[in-house]
Amino acid sequence: MIALDQHPSGRHFLQIPGPSPVPDRILRALSLPTIDHRGPEFGALGKKVLAGIGQVFRTRHPVVVYPSSGTGAWEAALVNVTSPGDAVLMFETGQFASLWYKMALRLGLAPEFLAVPGIDGATGLPWSWRRGVQAELIEARLRQDAGHAIRAVCVVHNETSTGVTSDIAAVRRAIDAAGHPALLMVDTISGLGCADYRHDEWGVDVAISGSQKGLMLPPGLGFNALSPRALAASQAARMPKAYWAWDEIVEMNKGGYWPYTPNTNLLYGLSEALDMLLEQGLETVFARHRRWGEGVRAAVRAWGLPIQCADASLHSPVLTGVITPQGVDADAVRKLIHERFDLSLGTGLGKVKGRMFRIGHLGDSNDLTLVATVAGAEMGLKLGGVALAGSGVQAAMDHFAAHPAPRALRAAA
Amino acid sequence: MIALDQHPSGRHFLQIPGPSPVPDRILRALSLPTIDHRGPEFGALGKKVLAGIGQVFRTRHPVVVYPSSGTGAWEAALVNVTSPGDAVLMFETGQFASLWYKMALRLGLAPEFLAVPGIDGATGLPWSWRRGVQAELIEARLRQDAGHAIRAVCVVHNETSTGVTSDIAAVRRAIDAAGHPALLMVDTISGLGCADYRHDEWGVDVAISGSQKGLMLPPGLGFNALSPRALAASQAARMPKAYWAWDEIVEMNKGGYWPYTPNTNLLYGLSEALDMLLEQGLETVFARHRRWGEGVRAAVRAWGLPIQCADASLHSPVLTGVITPQGVDADAVRKLIHERFDLSLGTGLGKVKGRMFRIGHLGDSNDLTLVATVAGAEMGLKLGGVALAGSGVQAAMDHFAAHPAPRALRAAA
Amino acid sequence: MIALDQHPSGRHFLQIPGPSPVPDRILRALSLPTIDHRGPEFGALGKKVLAGIGQVFRTRHPVVVYPSSGTGAWEAALVNVTSPGDAVLMFETGQFASLWYKMALRLGLAPEFLAVPGIDGATGLPWSWRRGVQAELIEARLRQDAGHAIRAVCVVHNETSTGVTSDIAAVRRAIDAAGHPALLMVDTISGLGCADYRHDEWGVDVAISGSQKGLMLPPGLGFNALSPRALAASQAARMPKAYWAWDEIVEMNKGGYWPYTPNTNLLYGLSEALDMLLEQGLETVFARHRRWGEGVRAAVRAWGLPIQCADASLHSPVLTGVITPQGVDADAVRKLIHERFDLSLGTGLGKVKGRMFRIGHLGDSNDLTLVATVAGAEMGLKLGGVALAGSGVQAAMDHFAAHPAPRALRAAA
Amino acid sequence: MIALDQHPSGRHFLQIPGPSPVPDRILRALSLPTIDHRGPEFGALGKKVLAGIGQVFRTRHPVVVYPSSGTGAWEAALVNVTSPGDAVLMFETGQFASLWYKMALRLGLAPEFLAVPGIDGATGLPWSWRRGVQAELIEARLRQDAGHAIRAVCVVHNETSTGVTSDIAAVRRAIDAAGHPALLMVDTISGLGCADYRHDEWGVDVAISGSQKGLMLPPGLGFNALSPRALAASQAARMPKAYWAWDEIVEMNKGGYWPYTPNTNLLYGLSEALDMLLEQGLETVFARHRRWGEGVRAAVRAWGLPIQCADASLHSPVLTGVITPQGVDADAVRKLIHERFDLSLGTGLGKVKGRMFRIGHLGDSNDLTLVATVAGAEMGLKLGGVALAGSGVQAAMDHFAAHPAPRALRAAA
Repeated sequence: MIALDQHPSGRHFLQIPGPSPVPDRILRALSLPTIDHRGPEFGALGKKVLAGIGQVFRTRHPVVVYPSSGTGAWEAALVNVTSPGDAVLMFETGQFASLWYKMALRLGLAPEFLAVPGIDGATGLPWSWRRGVQAELIEARLRQDAGHAIRAVCVVHNETSTGVTSDIAAVRRAIDAAGHPALLMVDTISGLGCADYRHDEWGVDVAISGSQKGLMLPPGLGFNALSPRALAASQAARMPKAYWAWDEIVEMNKGGYWPYTPNTNLLYGLSEALDMLLEQGLETVFARHRRWGEGVRAAVRAWGLPIQCADASLHSPVLTGVITPQGVDADAVRKLIHERFDLSLGTGLGKVKGRMFRIGHLGDSNDLTLVATVAGAEMGLKLGGVALAGSGVQAAMDHFAAHPAPRALRAAA
Repeated sequence: MIALDQHPSGRHFLQIPGPSPVPDRILRALSLPTIDHRGPEFGALGKKVLAGIGQVFRTRHPVVVYPSSGTGAWEAALVNVTSPGDAVLMFETGQFASLWYKMALRLGLAPEFLAVPGIDGATGLPWSWRRGVQAELIEARLRQDAGHAIRAVCVVHNETSTGVTSDIAAVRRAIDAAGHPALLMVDTISGLGCADYRHDEWGVDVAISGSQKGLMLPPGLGFNALSPRALAASQAARMPKAYWAWDEIVEMNKGGYWPYTPNTNLLYGLSEALDMLLEQGLETVFARHRRWGEGVRAAVRAWGLPIQCADASLHSPVLTGVITPQGVDADAVRKLIHERFDLSLGTGLGKVKGRMFRIGHLGDSNDLTLVATVAGAEMGLKLGGVALAGSGVQAAMDHFAAHPAPRALRAAA
Repeated sequence: MIALDQHPSGRHFLQIPGPSPVPDRILRALSLPTIDHRGPEFGALGKKVLAGIGQVFRTRHPVVVYPSSGTGAWEAALVNVTSPGDAVLMFETGQFASLWYKMALRLGLAPEFLAVPGIDGATGLPWSWRRGVQAELIEARLRQDAGHAIRAVCVVHNETSTGVTSDIAAVRRAIDAAGHPALLMVDTISGLGCADYRHDEWGVDVAISGSQKGLMLPPGLGFNALSPRALAASQAARMPKAYWAWDEIVEMNKGGYWPYTPNTNLLYGLSEALDMLLEQGLETVFARHRRWGEGVRAAVRAWGLPIQCADASLHSPVLTGVITPQGVDADAVRKLIHERFDLSLGTGLGKVKGRMFRIGHLGDSNDLTLVATVAGAEMGLKLGGVALAGSGVQAAMDHFAAHPAPRALRAAA
Repeated sequence: MIALDQHPSGRHFLQIPGPSPVPDRILRALSLPTIDHRGPEFGALGKKVLAGIGQVFRTRHPVVVYPSSGTGAWEAALVNVTSPGDAVLMFETGQFASLWYKMALRLGLAPEFLAVPGIDGATGLPWSWRRGVQAELIEARLRQDAGHAIRAVCVVHNETSTGVTSDIAAVRRAIDAAGHPALLMVDTISGLGCADYRHDEWGVDVAISGSQKGLMLPPGLGFNALSPRALAASQAARMPKAYWAWDEIVEMNKGGYWPYTPNTNLLYGLSEALDMLLEQGLETVFARHRRWGEGVRAAVRAWGLPIQCADASLHSPVLTGVITPQGVDADAVRKLIHERFDLSLGTGLGKVKGRMFRIGHLGDSNDLTLVATVAGAEMGLKLGGVALAGSGVQAAMDHFAAHPAPRALRAAA
């Protein structure tokens, strides 16, 4: 069997912002024997996971599950509701918003990319990669689109490259305020199951997600949560589509089946993940992510390093971007940390490459794991020659000790 | 944890033509902890599986691995080499050839569907669903295409709905004889790892496969094996493509990585599957599939029921289609067998629905498992009121006893 | 990882009378992370499995669980209730009764071994190894023991070496009829969870069992089910004992803990096994074992070979001993079957070595698995030169087809 | 399946001095299907693990493996070489030495218990529980035994209740200096695979160990490593023995088999554990344990709390005992730590109950896991009202950062 043993003793600390650590319960579920995807047991499984995933998206409408990465689910969202050459309005919040934009271009759409202008003098980084979606810019742009040529507004809920969680409800309000019929499409790949997300209440038309973040699964499942308006739009849309087409899938899903062979063993894992999340309760799930984020940010502040997300109201409960001083190669620090302390941190992507690293604090985690993560980062920063203002580990410990986890997450006394 | 226990005692016999039974070694590999898809361990894994899968396809050219079903790999093959409205020549060999044809239509291509004409009087079934690809029909059609409008010839290697394994080398010879530049695209979803397949030697341009058949994995991985001509064609092709686009994947695969998050845990399984197949040797793998097919067909002949594949030179080593007498509902028999004997057999699809069932004899199997399968089918047929000419179980046993498995598959004496 | 692949394709058929095939559910439970055996979670686990195992023994009194083989549980039973030199009355039913007798000798007790006398002319085998415990011989012997020197009567419930299930209630009646105070000690290592066993109702004082038979676990757990009389006797008994001593264990078990480190991961498996057995219901569990035994014996009768158990009222639901013709080396046939058909059958032990083999039909099994087992044995017997009177496979199939499994064991229609 | 989820998010930190955390590789090995313990595959497995375990004990003589806890292996050692009433000389180093002494008493031997006298005024704890075996006391006592009535000298290598690793070679020198024929019996239950142990070189006659410490397995296997003198002594010894008797086991082990059903799935785990230890190299294994102990003790010193082991030359590489201030209930602190931080620490046992806790730093671990452990203990001590002199976490981080792990334990740069 393949040996994953670059560090041959102890447990790896996988603290990237996804894939997140997969709990043992789910790993075991993945290894159940594959069954007939046309047999009666499968239908029961299918109906169960489709009902459960709807609860996590907080929608009463269909959720489509693909054997794909999250990137595939981006493509699915675009091709189901657009026709060749359609305009879509996107917002640059970081690397993943940028990749989605490039995909739209490549598919033959006419995407337009809004962004916060300017460079932050203190760090030399673009402001657009440190802030969230600006609903007022979207509203202004839509008001200009008198002909309603813009088919959809596409935003990222939790930008995995920066640690900014944007206000999605505000985007819906902006669209409505502009009186514009554009669909609202939201990438919540790293938000779902970590940060509060309310599909129906927020009026999202298509939400995109993946399995390897808050759902605590390996990668391999992509999701599209739909609205009735999105389903209606897909009837008229003329982009070529087959694998990604919602119609047949939604129809067959009624019986718990798929038109093509689904990803059976990942669906076992999804079933287990949904049990875990829903037994715990989404509010408790969100509360633990928020609390972890606060503890980690307390550490970063103690170090005296800038947090990537410059808007304190949008700090992500999923990850924290840490900006390293100019002249320090953040990736060299990360490599040293990996080699010495068996800890994986997220790299800086795109416009912030080499200038920051990302600490994932999502999914199946707890206080000591995050204290260890902060400790590994702190030792690595010092070994890498970064002068720190103070002890981040102490700050994180103080935070966690002073603010107990919700009762439901602790052992019986 | 989800309990898959419709039959709460003993082991299910999964004898559909895929997903095939996943060996314990692979199930355990699937449950290894998910790692950072950008870390150094991942690159080593990626390079290993990409090298190995090339050996199984028998190609020195790139093989693209998608997080997708086999259906996704069909789409990938089409969208990478075609432009909107392109003509493609396809051949009706059964349900999967028909579904691929429908996909081409849906994607806005102009597929043409060749078929063997006529109905078999004895069974009332179309001859096209009992025969293989007729290379001479393809050659004739290509000769008519003086303007070389046909972009590709698309055929199914092993038609999972009928149990016919077509002669792919003959199709290449036909294209060459016609002097036509069409690409040769081959669906070997259920053939790969069971039936002999030689990508480079046979001159295939794009081969499509999936994980859940001869590779003995759960579903979730799709494959495109390429040729240099296919790669060149993809540069000029104008079909919109992003997720499926070969270029970035092939480039990043050089280091063992993917442009988007790959299906990590299924790649662990692929690594293990490749170890198993290559340690055993492809010739031994093919030999055991052929031998199993012979044993199962001996049983069907003893029953006096027609084998779906009417051309003895094209009997599939992967599955055997069994035609039930007119007036017998094959699906009712299958259901009875599932309920009474915990055995899943494949249903009749499309034009042969209700008139046949399919016995899978692929992947991780052995003689006693197939004798049990034949026994379950035989008991079910009798309980379902089908008069049988003789004992299929006895015939299968006689075959297996008289023809020992290759030495490499037996225990040390 | 160790590769168990003497037969590198397909699933091994483990049809020895124990260890029985371990269901996947239990194998997964075994692989849960080991926890603190003094922590709060452990106490809950301990109490659960101790309550459940009592239900399987059908006792309201303590059951002691050892990290040991069944052999260890034999020793535990003897050393807890005897003093050096004590007389114990044992009954020769086969190899395991004989080994228990030898253990008693070795421990310094004075065992006496009753047996049915004589040799069966037809097979040349001793009658004692083809019959059950004769309660009337025990009663007669106890009546002679006016001084009540005999401390205990020790019998085997299901003799794993012969396939004879003795009448335990009759032994209790015999002891009572003799007015003798001897304790009744019963080895139900291979009986528990397969054959009906009623600890309290039958008045058994100490029952011995193990994990690797009807409980469907790997070996490693030994059991002593007690009676109040046995507990009282252990206070006075002077055999040196520490590891096996009941007193401390029974006391600590009240909180779900053990005085020394218990076999944590096997207790996870036990928890799962108890869930499986009790959800199914013991009556259903016994019914499926009886039915399997009937099907297998139908096959042996069709072959024209003698069933080892000569008393039809005592045929074991756990295993069937098959006597091979004089001049045939049964072990050579077994070896051929293992090598050719990946099927493990039980060897002949002790006085019947080389003259018989044993078919296990216990634990996690079903009809097709047993048909395959019969098929493998039949092919092997023929290849080994044994002339068979008829088709055992056909007889087994006819039996199973004509006698459906209990509703609770079948899939929903 | 049983849910071990008192803390339903994240990974438990099992930092008791055994059972130690079982690596995933081993958990997976445990879940391989159980095989026939009399079949050919089993013999190969048996021979492999018996050869490997000898390498870990550093002996060329037989090692006996029992399905038992370590307690069982204690009993095995005693009953194989003694006769009823025999004198054995034992040395009080803590709770486990005391339990072994009580077992000897209970088995009818005449144990004599040497100890360092006195009470440590500063902590109020007995000196005997803070020091190692005093070889000179043993030598003196043996010199008094002119008649050589003492059959064996029994000492604990690594006392799990105190964190003291005694000098075994010195004990052998003492016995030899006294010219006494007593056997040297050594409990290295928690030492083996963590601390240097040299069976043959040190002249040990019987070493006792268990699976759940340095071997990184679940509990369930007990070991006796023998010397030729011990084997000879067992021939003459008259203690009743059957299950524990070495003779038959050693004989059957030559072919890789056992006289009774061995603990098959734990032997799979043992095979994997031996691969891991021997691939890494015992010197590297010992080096990482020593380094971890140093880091943890740096933390305890920074706290200003006494380390239980008062002899710096005998600090255990396996665990560190931490003495809490008088008036603080160490178990209340442990409970708080478990409830708040999902961290299990070892309780104070016997004469030090409530006055200390134990930090395990053994088996499958790494720097960040131990920093997290120290952090959890530190937060708990503070929350429990213990005034600490300084930051233990900082001290541990400083130690680990300044002293890199051996090259072989780090990822490729």
